[in-house]
Amino acid sequence: MSQQFSSQAIAILIDELRRLPGIGKVTAQRLAFHILKAPTERALGLSDAIRAVKEKVRYCTACWNITESEVCDICHDAKRDPSLICVVEEPKDIVTMERTGEFRGLYHVLHGAISPLDRVSPDDIRARELVLRLHDTVREVIIATNPNIEGDATAMYLARLIKPIGVRVTRLARGLPMGGDLEYADDVTLARALEGRTEL
Amino acid sequence: MSQQFSSQAIAILIDELRRLPGIGKVTAQRLAFHILKAPTERALGLSDAIRAVKEKVRYCTACWNITESEVCDICHDAKRDPSLICVVEEPKDIVTMERTGEFRGLYHVLHGAISPLDRVSPDDIRARELVLRLHDTVREVIIATNPNIEGDATAMYLARLIKPIGVRVTRLARGLPMGGDLEYADDVTLARALEGRTEL
Repeated sequence: MSQQFSSQAIAILIDELRRLPGIGKVTAQRLAFHILKAPTERALGLSDAIRAVKEKVRYCTACWNITESEVCDICHDAKRDPSLICVVEEPKDIVTMERTGEFRGLYHVLHGAISPLDRVSPDDIRARELVLRLHDTVREVIIATNPNIEGDATAMYLARLIKPIGVRVTRLARGLPMGGDLEYADDVTLARALEGRTEL
Repeated sequence: MSQQFSSQAIAILIDELRRLPGIGKVTAQRLAFHILKAPTERALGLSDAIRAVKEKVRYCTACWNITESEVCDICHDAKRDPSLICVVEEPKDIVTMERTGEFRGLYHVLHGAISPLDRVSPDDIRARELVLRLHDTVREVIIATNPNIEGDATAMYLARLIKPIGVRVTRLARGLPMGGDLEYADDVTLARALEGRTEL
Protein backbone atom coordinates (compact mmCIF):
# COMPACT_ATOMS: atom_id res chain seq x y z
CA MET A 1 0.00 0.00 0.00
CA SER A 2 2.53 2.52 1.20
CA GLN A 3 4.64 2.64 -1.96
CA GLN A 4 1.73 3.85 -4.07
CA PHE A 5 1.91 7.15 -2.21
CA SER A 6 4.89 8.17 -4.34
CA SER A 7 6.40 9.67 -1.18
CA GLN A 8 8.47 7.50 1.13
CA ALA A 9 8.16 10.09 3.93
CA ILE A 10 4.36 9.92 4.08
CA ALA A 11 4.46 6.11 3.93
CA ILE A 12 6.87 6.04 6.89
CA LEU A 13 4.70 8.47 8.87
CA ILE A 14 1.61 6.32 8.25
CA ASP A 15 3.54 3.24 9.43
CA GLU A 16 4.73 5.05 12.59
CA LEU A 17 1.23 6.33 13.40
CA ARG A 18 -0.21 2.82 12.96
CA ARG A 19 2.00 1.60 15.80
CA LEU A 20 0.04 3.78 18.23
CA PRO A 21 -2.70 2.00 20.19
CA GLY A 22 -6.17 2.22 18.64
CA ILE A 23 -4.89 3.78 15.39
CA GLY A 24 -5.79 1.69 12.34
CA LYS A 25 -4.85 2.06 8.69
CA VAL A 26 -7.56 4.57 7.80
CA THR A 27 -7.00 6.78 10.87
CA ALA A 28 -3.22 6.72 10.37
CA GLN A 29 -3.71 7.88 6.77
CA ARG A 30 -6.08 10.65 7.81
CA LEU A 31 -3.69 11.85 10.53
CA ALA A 32 -0.69 11.73 8.19
CA PHE A 33 -2.44 13.87 5.58
CA HIS A 34 -3.63 16.23 8.28
CA ILE A 35 -0.02 16.66 9.45
CA LEU A 36 1.10 17.16 5.85
CA LYS A 37 -1.45 19.95 5.34
CA ALA A 38 -1.02 21.53 8.79
CA PRO A 39 1.11 24.66 9.16
CA THR A 40 4.77 23.72 9.61
CA GLU A 41 4.96 25.16 13.15
CA ARG A 42 1.98 22.97 14.23
CA ALA A 43 3.53 19.80 12.84
CA LEU A 44 6.95 20.59 14.28
CA GLY A 45 5.23 21.40 17.59
CA LEU A 46 3.94 17.84 17.75
CA SER A 47 7.28 16.43 16.63
CA ASP A 48 9.13 18.41 19.32
CA ALA A 49 6.55 17.54 22.01
CA ILE A 50 7.13 13.82 21.42
CA ARG A 51 10.90 14.30 21.62
CA ALA A 52 10.60 16.47 24.76
CA VAL A 53 8.54 13.86 26.58
CA LYS A 54 11.22 11.24 26.01
CA GLU A 55 14.00 13.65 26.99
CA LYS A 56 12.49 15.44 29.99
CA VAL A 57 9.97 13.22 31.72
CA ARG A 58 11.20 10.86 34.40
CA TYR A 59 9.71 9.19 37.44
CA CYS A 60 9.51 10.69 40.92
CA THR A 61 12.04 8.88 43.09
CA ALA A 62 9.52 8.81 45.95
CA CYS A 63 6.17 7.86 44.41
CA TRP A 64 6.92 6.93 40.73
CA ASN A 65 4.58 9.64 39.43
CA ILE A 66 5.83 11.36 36.27
CA THR A 67 7.89 14.51 36.87
CA GLU A 68 10.63 16.62 35.36
CA SER A 69 12.54 16.98 38.63
CA GLU A 70 13.94 14.56 41.19
CA VAL A 71 10.66 14.53 43.16
CA CYS A 72 7.16 15.30 41.84
CA ASP A 73 5.08 18.37 42.79
CA ILE A 74 2.79 16.39 45.08
CA CYS A 75 5.60 14.71 47.04
CA HIS A 76 7.30 18.11 47.24
CA ASP A 77 4.19 19.85 48.65
CA ALA A 78 4.64 20.31 52.42
CA LYS A 79 0.88 20.81 52.84
CA ARG A 80 0.12 17.20 51.84
CA ASP A 81 -0.41 14.61 54.58
CA PRO A 82 2.45 12.08 54.49
CA SER A 83 0.58 9.63 56.73
CA LEU A 84 -1.79 8.68 53.87
CA ILE A 85 -0.65 6.95 50.69
CA CYS A 86 -3.07 6.35 47.83
CA VAL A 87 -1.92 3.53 45.52
CA VAL A 88 -2.85 3.85 41.83
CA GLU A 89 -2.00 1.84 38.71
CA GLU A 90 -0.92 4.67 36.39
CA PRO A 91 0.21 8.33 36.62
CA LYS A 92 -3.01 9.44 34.89
CA ASP A 93 -5.01 7.99 37.80
CA ILE A 94 -3.43 10.65 40.03
CA VAL A 95 -5.01 13.32 37.81
CA THR A 96 -8.39 11.62 38.20
CA MET A 97 -8.04 11.40 41.99
CA GLU A 98 -6.83 15.01 42.28
CA ARG A 99 -9.88 16.16 40.34
CA THR A 100 -12.10 15.17 43.30
CA GLY A 101 -10.16 17.56 45.56
CA GLU A 102 -10.93 15.16 48.43
CA PHE A 103 -7.56 13.51 48.93
CA ARG A 104 -4.75 15.42 50.62
CA GLY A 105 -2.23 12.61 51.14
CA LEU A 106 0.56 11.29 48.92
CA TYR A 107 0.44 8.78 46.07
CA HIS A 108 2.26 5.68 44.90
CA VAL A 109 2.15 4.64 41.25
CA LEU A 110 2.45 0.88 40.59
CA HIS A 111 2.84 1.21 36.79
CA GLY A 112 0.55 -1.71 36.13
CA ALA A 113 -1.61 -4.30 37.84
CA ILE A 114 -0.98 -7.97 38.45
CA SER A 115 -2.34 -9.98 35.53
CA PRO A 116 -1.26 -13.60 34.96
CA LEU A 117 -2.95 -13.52 31.52
CA ASP A 118 -0.82 -10.57 30.39
CA ARG A 119 2.20 -12.06 32.22
CA VAL A 120 2.41 -9.15 34.67
CA SER A 121 3.69 -10.62 37.94
CA PRO A 122 4.04 -8.84 41.32
CA ASP A 123 7.70 -8.25 40.44
CA ASP A 124 6.70 -6.23 37.37
CA ILE A 125 4.87 -3.54 39.34
CA ARG A 126 6.30 -1.07 41.90
CA ALA A 127 5.03 -3.08 44.91
CA ARG A 128 8.37 -3.58 46.65
CA GLU A 129 9.03 0.17 46.34
CA LEU A 130 5.71 0.81 48.11
CA VAL A 131 6.60 -1.45 51.06
CA LEU A 132 9.94 0.34 51.41
CA ARG A 133 8.07 3.64 51.88
CA LEU A 134 6.01 2.38 54.84
CA HIS A 135 8.00 3.79 57.74
CA ASP A 136 6.51 5.07 60.99
CA THR A 137 4.76 8.16 59.57
CA VAL A 138 2.46 6.15 57.29
CA ARG A 139 -0.89 5.48 58.95
CA GLU A 140 -3.01 4.18 56.07
CA VAL A 141 -2.59 2.86 52.53
CA ILE A 142 -5.67 3.46 50.34
CA ILE A 143 -5.67 1.11 47.37
CA ALA A 144 -7.23 2.77 44.32
CA THR A 145 -6.45 0.18 41.65
CA ASN A 146 -9.13 -0.27 38.97
CA PRO A 147 -12.37 -2.05 39.93
CA ASN A 148 -11.67 -5.08 37.72
CA ILE A 149 -10.08 -8.52 38.12
CA GLU A 150 -6.48 -7.26 37.76
CA GLY A 151 -7.10 -4.36 40.13
CA ASP A 152 -8.70 -6.67 42.69
CA ALA A 153 -5.87 -9.19 42.46
CA THR A 154 -3.33 -6.40 42.95
CA ALA A 155 -5.26 -5.02 45.95
CA MET A 156 -5.38 -8.46 47.59
CA TYR A 157 -1.67 -9.00 46.99
CA LEU A 158 -0.74 -5.59 48.44
CA ALA A 159 -3.00 -6.07 51.47
CA ARG A 160 -1.29 -9.40 52.26
CA LEU A 161 2.07 -7.67 51.95
CA ILE A 162 1.31 -4.53 53.99
CA LYS A 163 -0.99 -5.70 56.81
CA PRO A 164 1.78 -7.67 58.62
CA ILE A 165 3.78 -4.42 58.85
CA GLY A 166 0.93 -2.99 60.95
CA VAL A 167 -0.28 -0.34 58.50
CA ARG A 168 -4.02 0.00 57.83
CA VAL A 169 -4.97 -0.99 54.27
CA THR A 170 -8.25 0.19 52.69
CA ARG A 171 -9.77 0.00 49.21
CA LEU A 172 -12.08 2.47 47.41
CA ALA A 173 -15.75 1.55 47.92
CA ARG A 174 -17.57 -0.32 45.18
CA GLY A 175 -21.28 0.18 44.61
CA LEU A 176 -23.82 2.02 42.51
CA PRO A 177 -22.45 5.05 40.62
CA MET A 178 -24.01 8.36 41.66
CA GLY A 179 -26.70 9.77 39.40
CA GLY A 180 -27.36 6.36 37.89
CA ASP A 181 -30.58 4.38 37.69
CA LEU A 182 -30.94 1.02 39.46
CA GLU A 183 -32.42 -0.45 36.29
CA TYR A 184 -29.20 0.16 34.34
CA ALA A 185 -26.75 -1.15 36.93
CA ASP A 186 -24.99 -4.35 35.83
CA ASP A 187 -25.38 -7.51 37.94
CA VAL A 188 -21.85 -7.52 39.35
CA THR A 189 -22.05 -3.87 40.47
CA LEU A 190 -25.48 -4.47 42.01
CA ALA A 191 -24.24 -7.57 43.86
CA ARG A 192 -21.28 -5.56 45.18
CA ALA A 193 -23.57 -2.73 46.27
CA LEU A 194 -25.74 -5.19 48.18
CA GLU A 195 -22.74 -6.90 49.78
CA GLY A 196 -21.27 -3.55 50.88
CA ARG A 197 -24.58 -1.99 52.04
CA THR A 198 -24.23 0.63 54.79
CA GLU A 199 -26.32 1.31 57.89
CA LEU A 200 -28.61 4.37 57.76
CA MET B 1 -6.29 19.68 33.80
CA SER B 2 -2.87 19.64 32.19
CA GLN B 3 -0.99 21.21 35.08
CA GLN B 4 -1.96 18.44 37.45
CA PHE B 5 0.32 16.11 35.52
CA SER B 6 3.33 17.61 37.31
CA SER B 7 5.17 17.42 33.98
CA GLN B 8 4.86 20.29 31.53
CA ALA B 9 6.22 18.11 28.72
CA ILE B 10 3.42 15.54 28.96
CA ALA B 11 0.81 18.31 29.23
CA ILE B 12 2.18 19.91 26.05
CA LEU B 13 2.20 16.57 24.22
CA ILE B 14 -1.43 15.93 25.22
CA ASP B 15 -2.38 19.41 23.95
CA GLU B 16 -0.57 18.85 20.65
CA LEU B 17 -2.19 15.44 20.14
CA ARG B 18 -5.64 16.91 20.84
CA ARG B 19 -5.23 19.23 17.86
CA LEU B 20 -5.28 16.20 15.55
CA PRO B 21 -8.65 15.44 13.95
CA GLY B 22 -10.78 12.89 15.82
CA ILE B 23 -8.47 12.81 18.85
CA GLY B 24 -10.27 13.79 22.06
CA LYS B 25 -9.00 14.35 25.58
CA VAL B 26 -9.03 10.69 26.63
CA THR B 27 -7.39 9.40 23.44
CA ALA B 28 -4.73 12.14 23.57
CA GLN B 29 -3.91 11.13 27.16
CA ARG B 30 -3.71 7.45 26.25
CA LEU B 31 -1.44 8.18 23.27
CA ALA B 32 0.80 10.50 25.31
CA PHE B 33 1.34 7.86 28.00
CA HIS B 34 1.92 5.24 25.34
CA ILE B 35 4.63 7.44 23.80
CA LEU B 36 6.12 8.04 27.27
CA LYS B 37 6.38 4.29 27.90
CA ALA B 38 7.45 3.34 24.38
CA PRO B 39 11.12 2.61 23.65
CA THR B 40 12.98 5.86 22.87
CA GLU B 41 13.78 4.82 19.28
CA ARG B 42 10.06 4.20 18.58
CA ALA B 43 9.03 7.60 19.94
CA LEU B 44 11.83 9.41 18.13
CA GLY B 45 10.89 7.46 14.98
CA LEU B 46 7.45 9.05 15.10
CA SER B 47 8.89 12.47 15.94
CA ASP B 48 11.33 12.28 13.01
CA ALA B 49 8.66 10.96 10.62
CA ILE B 50 6.49 14.03 11.30
CA ARG B 51 9.44 16.35 10.71
CA ALA B 52 10.46 14.48 7.53
CA VAL B 53 6.99 14.79 6.03
CA LYS B 54 7.07 18.56 6.46
CA GLU B 55 10.61 18.80 5.12
CA LYS B 56 10.53 16.37 2.19
CA VAL B 57 7.01 16.11 0.82
CA ARG B 58 5.91 18.57 -1.81
CA TYR B 59 3.37 18.62 -4.62
CA CYS B 60 3.92 17.34 -8.14
CA THR B 61 4.18 20.38 -10.42
CA ALA B 62 2.07 18.58 -13.03
CA CYS B 63 -0.79 16.90 -11.13
CA TRP B 64 -0.52 18.15 -7.50
CA ASN B 65 -0.11 14.62 -6.14
CA ILE B 66 2.33 14.36 -3.22
CA THR B 67 5.91 13.58 -4.19
CA GLU B 68 9.48 14.07 -3.06
CA SER B 69 10.73 15.12 -6.51
CA GLU B 70 9.72 17.75 -9.06
CA VAL B 71 7.21 15.40 -10.71
CA CYS B 72 5.44 12.41 -9.11
CA ASP B 73 6.05 8.77 -10.07
CA ILE B 74 2.79 8.48 -12.00
CA CYS B 75 3.37 11.62 -14.11
CA HIS B 76 6.93 10.42 -14.66
CA ASP B 77 5.84 6.98 -15.90
CA ALA B 78 6.08 6.89 -19.72
CA LYS B 79 3.75 3.86 -19.84
CA ARG B 80 0.77 5.88 -18.54
CA ASP B 81 -1.73 7.28 -21.04
CA PRO B 82 -1.50 11.11 -21.07
CA SER B 83 -4.80 11.46 -22.96
CA LEU B 84 -6.82 10.49 -19.87
CA ILE B 85 -6.90 12.60 -16.69
CA CYS B 86 -8.70 11.36 -13.60
CA VAL B 87 -9.63 14.21 -11.22
CA VAL B 88 -9.67 13.40 -7.50
CA GLU B 89 -10.15 15.48 -4.36
CA GLU B 90 -7.15 14.30 -2.32
CA PRO B 91 -3.80 12.52 -2.87
CA LYS B 92 -5.07 9.49 -0.93
CA ASP B 93 -7.81 9.03 -3.54
CA ILE B 94 -5.07 8.22 -6.05
CA VAL B 95 -4.05 5.28 -3.86
CA THR B 96 -7.66 4.07 -3.84
CA MET B 97 -7.98 4.40 -7.62
CA GLU B 98 -4.62 2.71 -8.24
CA ARG B 99 -5.72 -0.25 -6.13
CA THR B 100 -8.28 -1.18 -8.79
CA GLY B 101 -5.49 -1.51 -11.36
CA GLU B 102 -8.03 -0.44 -14.01
CA PHE B 103 -6.91 3.11 -14.71
CA ARG B 104 -3.75 3.71 -16.76
CA GLY B 105 -4.04 7.46 -17.35
CA LEU B 106 -2.79 10.42 -15.31
CA TYR B 107 -4.34 12.17 -12.32
CA HIS B 108 -5.14 15.66 -11.15
CA VAL B 109 -5.54 16.40 -7.43
CA LEU B 110 -7.90 19.28 -6.57
CA HIS B 111 -6.99 19.39 -2.85
CA GLY B 112 -10.58 19.85 -1.80
CA ALA B 113 -14.10 20.10 -3.14
CA ILE B 114 -16.33 23.14 -3.58
CA SER B 115 -18.37 23.65 -0.44
CA PRO B 116 -20.11 26.97 0.26
CA LEU B 117 -20.87 25.80 3.83
CA ASP B 118 -17.16 25.23 4.56
CA ARG B 119 -16.31 28.38 2.58
CA VAL B 120 -14.38 26.45 -0.06
CA SER B 121 -14.88 28.30 -3.35
CA PRO B 122 -13.75 27.23 -6.85
CA ASP B 123 -10.67 29.44 -6.35
CA ASP B 124 -9.60 27.36 -3.33
CA ILE B 125 -9.20 24.13 -5.29
CA ARG B 126 -6.75 23.35 -8.10
CA ALA B 127 -9.38 23.80 -10.84
CA ARG B 128 -7.58 26.48 -12.85
CA GLU B 129 -4.44 24.31 -12.85
CA LEU B 130 -6.51 21.47 -14.33
CA VAL B 131 -7.79 23.62 -17.19
CA LEU B 132 -4.22 24.75 -17.97
CA ARG B 133 -3.27 21.05 -18.46
CA LEU B 134 -5.90 20.44 -21.14
CA HIS B 135 -3.83 20.82 -24.31
CA ASP B 136 -4.34 18.79 -27.47
CA THR B 137 -3.23 15.40 -26.10
CA VAL B 138 -6.00 15.23 -23.49
CA ARG B 139 -8.99 13.29 -24.79
CA GLU B 140 -11.08 12.76 -21.65
CA VAL B 141 -11.34 14.06 -18.09
CA ILE B 142 -12.83 11.51 -15.68
CA ILE B 143 -14.16 13.22 -12.56
CA ALA B 144 -13.76 10.99 -9.51
CA THR B 145 -14.77 13.42 -6.76
CA ASN B 146 -16.65 11.92 -3.82
CA PRO B 147 -20.29 10.85 -4.38
CA ASN B 148 -21.68 13.53 -2.06
CA ILE B 149 -23.04 17.08 -2.37
CA GLU B 150 -19.61 18.75 -2.43
CA GLY B 151 -18.23 16.20 -4.91
CA ASP B 152 -21.27 16.65 -7.16
CA ALA B 153 -21.04 20.44 -7.04
CA THR B 154 -17.35 20.25 -7.92
CA ALA B 155 -18.04 17.85 -10.81
CA MET B 156 -20.74 20.17 -12.21
CA TYR B 157 -18.45 23.19 -11.94
CA LEU B 158 -15.57 21.41 -13.68
CA ALA B 159 -17.82 20.08 -16.46
CA ARG B 160 -19.05 23.61 -17.18
CA LEU B 161 -15.45 24.80 -17.28
CA ILE B 162 -14.00 22.01 -19.44
CA LYS B 163 -16.72 21.14 -21.97
CA PRO B 164 -16.38 24.46 -23.89
CA ILE B 165 -12.70 23.57 -24.50
CA GLY B 166 -13.91 20.52 -26.40
CA VAL B 167 -12.63 17.83 -24.05
CA ARG B 168 -14.93 14.96 -23.05
CA VAL B 169 -15.91 15.05 -19.35
CA THR B 170 -17.20 11.92 -17.58
CA ARG B 171 -18.02 11.04 -13.97
CA LEU B 172 -17.70 7.73 -12.11
CA ALA B 173 -20.96 5.77 -12.24
CA ARG B 174 -23.26 5.85 -9.22
CA GLY B 175 -25.46 2.89 -8.34
CA LEU B 176 -25.70 -0.16 -6.14
CA PRO B 177 -22.40 -1.26 -4.59
CA MET B 178 -21.23 -4.72 -5.68
CA GLY B 179 -21.88 -7.57 -3.26
CA GLY B 180 -24.60 -5.60 -1.51
CA ASP B 181 -28.22 -6.52 -0.91
CA LEU B 182 -31.04 -4.45 -2.44
CA GLU B 183 -32.77 -4.43 0.94
CA TYR B 184 -29.89 -2.54 2.56
CA ALA B 185 -29.39 0.10 -0.14
CA ASP B 186 -30.30 3.61 1.01
CA ASP B 187 -33.03 5.51 -0.85
CA VAL B 188 -30.73 8.01 -2.56
CA THR B 189 -28.42 5.29 -3.89
CA LEU B 190 -31.40 3.25 -5.09
CA ALA B 191 -32.93 6.28 -6.83
CA ARG B 192 -29.58 6.95 -8.53
CA ALA B 193 -29.31 3.30 -9.61
CA LEU B 194 -32.78 3.45 -11.13
CA GLU B 195 -32.04 6.75 -12.86
CA GLY B 196 -28.77 5.45 -14.30
CA ARG B 197 -30.10 1.99 -15.28
CA THR B 198 -28.27 0.37 -18.22
CA GLU B 199 -29.57 -1.63 -21.17
CA LEU B 200 -29.00 -5.41 -21.04
